[in-house]
Amino acid sequence: MITLSQRTQKMSPSYIREILNATQQPDMISFAGGLPDESLFPKQRLQDAAAKMLADTRCFQYGETQGDPKLREWIRNHQIPDTLEIIITTGSQQALDLIARAYLNPGDTVLVETPCYLGALQVFELAEASIITLPQTISGPDIEQLEHILKQHTPKLFYSVPDFHNPSGRCWSLETRQAVANLLNTHSTLFIEDAPYRALRYEGDHIAQVSDLTDAPTIRLGSFSKVATPGMRIGYAAGAATCIQPLILLKQAADLHSTLPIQRMMYHLLADGLLEEHLPQLIHHYREKSLVMTHMLRKALGDRLSLSDPVGGMFLWGELRGISAHALAKASLENGVAIVPGDVFYPSGHEGPEALRLNYTHASISMIEAGIKRLTHAVNMF
Amino acid sequence: MITLSQRTQKMSPSYIREILNATQQPDMISFAGGLPDESLFPKQRLQDAAAKMLADTRCFQYGETQGDPKLREWIRNHQIPDTLEIIITTGSQQALDLIARAYLNPGDTVLVETPCYLGALQVFELAEASIITLPQTISGPDIEQLEHILKQHTPKLFYSVPDFHNPSGRCWSLETRQAVANLLNTHSTLFIEDAPYRALRYEGDHIAQVSDLTDAPTIRLGSFSKVATPGMRIGYAAGAATCIQPLILLKQAADLHSTLPIQRMMYHLLADGLLEEHLPQLIHHYREKSLVMTHMLRKALGDRLSLSDPVGGMFLWGELRGISAHALAKASLENGVAIVPGDVFYPSGHEGPEALRLNYTHASISMIEAGIKRLTHAVNMF
Repeated sequence: MITLSQRTQKMSPSYIREILNATQQPDMISFAGGLPDESLFPKQRLQDAAAKMLADTRCFQYGETQGDPKLREWIRNHQIPDTLEIIITTGSQQALDLIARAYLNPGDTVLVETPCYLGALQVFELAEASIITLPQTISGPDIEQLEHILKQHTPKLFYSVPDFHNPSGRCWSLETRQAVANLLNTHSTLFIEDAPYRALRYEGDHIAQVSDLTDAPTIRLGSFSKVATPGMRIGYAAGAATCIQPLILLKQAADLHSTLPIQRMMYHLLADGLLEEHLPQLIHHYREKSLVMTHMLRKALGDRLSLSDPVGGMFLWGELRGISAHALAKASLENGVAIVPGDVFYPSGHEGPEALRLNYTHASISMIEAGIKRLTHAVNMF
Repeated sequence: MITLSQRTQKMSPSYIREILNATQQPDMISFAGGLPDESLFPKQRLQDAAAKMLADTRCFQYGETQGDPKLREWIRNHQIPDTLEIIITTGSQQALDLIARAYLNPGDTVLVETPCYLGALQVFELAEASIITLPQTISGPDIEQLEHILKQHTPKLFYSVPDFHNPSGRCWSLETRQAVANLLNTHSTLFIEDAPYRALRYEGDHIAQVSDLTDAPTIRLGSFSKVATPGMRIGYAAGAATCIQPLILLKQAADLHSTLPIQRMMYHLLADGLLEEHLPQLIHHYREKSLVMTHMLRKALGDRLSLSDPVGGMFLWGELRGISAHALAKASLENGVAIVPGDVFYPSGHEGPEALRLNYTHASISMIEAGIKRLTHAVNMF
């Protein structure tokens, strides 16, 4: 047996990837994953985009590490300030991993909100970073606490998901964003703004990104997994050239470049109006599902579950009163419904609250209704 | 400015990725890259495979980190012993990176043949490994020297490309493979057998892989970049489950999984006879190109260039007499032809021979003829 590297010895499999096995059982209803609804995949658009891509098979050749020039140009014209450099990655997950490898030595300090996106925790733990946490308030981080941490620890990175957070569903207010932007201006911390759910806003206007409000170094991550399809695995990182160049250098060694025909397909999807024509339908359906799930949960569980009120994204976050989240997750599985206990979204060694994350985008409305009945049954066993 | 990690500070851009910029100039003939001939891409097959893939859009959903089950099953049934575990990666380049992250701590020793595949050197340098080199003979590593190194240093990994090596074009004899396999049996070194060019054999029978001849732990890397198309970026690593499981765990954090629709397309390409029907045509064309280039070079340069005689792969390797390879590469660029000097394929700090790598697969026969004339002109300037 060959000894594993230290970083690998410390890793443990993701609770959520593991629970996916349980959810493969017939008749299991899963609110555990973070999957979009595949019945809403834009099939005709995918076919049209594939046909256009196949008309120019040069995209099947080796290409630039930075990614397909057409896709990069589309993103620069539509989603980011045109002064920024960009790199296309295999989902924004790869962008995060490249950032950690580019900027973190073992022991370096990283600041995350809690609860925190699990994939980010995995990346920072793999980088052997020292993780500092900042509990979320309903409108984002507490500014005084943030200032204290920036002063005291000067974290190398501050990772956050200001728009419709996974798992909490929360969205930072404009005031919070402005205050964070100002604080960043006077500290030497690289701000990582992850925004995979930003386009999934159900009501109200988009709020400016922190990256647009600050002069500090930032890298913003984008993803097409939630608005197109996740299996295509296309995300990106954008920021000042000095911030992005090291990621390009690392990606040369990591995989040369991400799959090009799929990047070209994504370009055609976007250029042919995916966000203007398909996205509003997606939002309509997801909003309806979120309302059904929220309504049923409030009616059935009342005070025993304190629910978030998301206006976007893919998740409900509920804090339990008088019930252990792990015991409930286990009882729920036995009742045929999968949910994720909240402490999974905390770094190892940090205690989380008794809470649940529920995904409402994947199941159909009738499955949501059946699943919440099963969950209610499980809650009533306690 | 945020400080880069130590590993990133040490990295330098690949000579070959950089030279690609120069080769974009109009009228430049490039023998510098390692590109297949895109005019030989199987366009109709790609269209058919895409149509089959699009008929089942479930492959656009999130999937298993290990890769598409259909593609894995095909590989297990056709390319590896069915007892092995497998992980699909974004090119075999990503498999190498995952292996380095899984097994290497900074300072760990890695043994490589020289010259060595540049992408492997980048990965091991990024892992801050201590690299030991073993010069190639015409039929593979010198066995006495290998035994001495294994005893003296017990390297963590031994990385090699026994079939039609990049850059040298060499192929290990069966005797060498058997001797290496025996040596591995009595030492604690993980053998990495990279075989991207194995299917591109122009004559004679396939020789058994070292991994099939030894009981020692091995990971074999496969790639479809040379037999299908490289832009799809599909490779794999296969080995005992204990060797592959850590790679799966790391890939969760690195990118969740590689693009699935493209994996499914590759499955359909393979299931529909790519290797039986398309590959022989590819081999026919590449063999012809290799013969034209070899013949022209021998005729024009005679004793000044000592050439390999490849029976497979994508490259010629030539050792120069009395000419500096870097000076010749520069003069060649000025004459409109791009080549790669041999010392690029040596770890930094190791001196390489005065040699050239020439790719013959990408250019057309008439471009090869024109390019070798330009190269001859450049040689005659010395």
